[in-house]
Amino acid sequence: MDLKQYVTTVENWPKEGISFKDITTIMDNGSAYKYATDQIVSYAKEVGAEIIVGPEARGFIIGCPVAYALEIGFAPVRKPGKLPREVVSADYGLEYGKDTLTMHKDALKPGQKVLICDDLLATGGTVEATVRLIEELGGEVVGCAFLIELTELNGRAKLGDLSVKTLIQY
Amino acid sequence: MDLKQYVTTVENWPKEGISFKDITTIMDNGSAYKYATDQIVSYAKEVGAEIIVGPEARGFIIGCPVAYALEIGFAPVRKPGKLPREVVSADYGLEYGKDTLTMHKDALKPGQKVLICDDLLATGGTVEATVRLIEELGGEVVGCAFLIELTELNGRAKLGDLSVKTLIQY
Repeated sequence: MDLKQYVTTVENWPKEGISFKDITTIMDNGSAYKYATDQIVSYAKEVGAEIIVGPEARGFIIGCPVAYALEIGFAPVRKPGKLPREVVSADYGLEYGKDTLTMHKDALKPGQKVLICDDLLATGGTVEATVRLIEELGGEVVGCAFLIELTELNGRAKLGDLSVKTLIQY
Repeated sequence: MDLKQYVTTVENWPKEGISFKDITTIMDNGSAYKYATDQIVSYAKEVGAEIIVGPEARGFIIGCPVAYALEIGFAPVRKPGKLPREVVSADYGLEYGKDTLTMHKDALKPGQKVLICDDLLATGGTVEATVRLIEELGGEVVGCAFLIELTELNGRAKLGDLSVKTLIQY
């Protein structure tokens, strides 16, 4: 299946000069969503994922069905003030802006093998901060899976030797 | 499985007097998350759901695996400014605060049978606004599934004759 045909490119959103990749037109197609998820499920098995971690909110759309398919847990990465118990925090730079991410301190077991799932690998700021959170919690990042990669932004450079899987490249 | 044992109650969060039900301790347990999702999948089959609609962000955690399991689509309900194309909007009152929800205008096909999924049925403000959005888009709400219901807040009253399924009641 050519997933790219289900992506909708929205020009100049959220601001002038950004060519936004809208994935809602993948998700609202049951076959495309299933196909995309199953590719990531296969990768998750290859890398031996024991838990999925995904940044809000589109990381939930990608990662939660993968966790379900493998009958493993899902731990959310959220903006400050969204998780109700004690958290660890990491700052990050986005393609457009800056923000902070948090995870619950008890979200991972020590040594747990983690697959990070998100919709988009752009500059890599979000995922790099997520890696730091996971490592602070004693988890081991065994892979990073993204629906879409914007290759010109070279987000992989921020991920060093980590295994990276992307389904659609621009 | 007694799902309630996996819920963590956080007192006085996000503000004094609120007894918050933290579902992250269900999600990070693969068996509990799978079990909860499978209950909703069975319900989705009973009511004949053709697409899942879920409000951000916890509605994605509940609804996306259900869509995957049934190989049907998922359409997100998001806060203003988060969806990149033309949207419809509805205001709503939360248990604590007020806000607006949006959906893409092309998210549903006319007559499509929709199951709404979310984590919590409290006062019912979010789901009632979601029902209005779905109906404005020509969809038919065939059911509403929630992980948790706070029965004292009587959110069901806002849903009239709609079918409602909840897995954990307080």
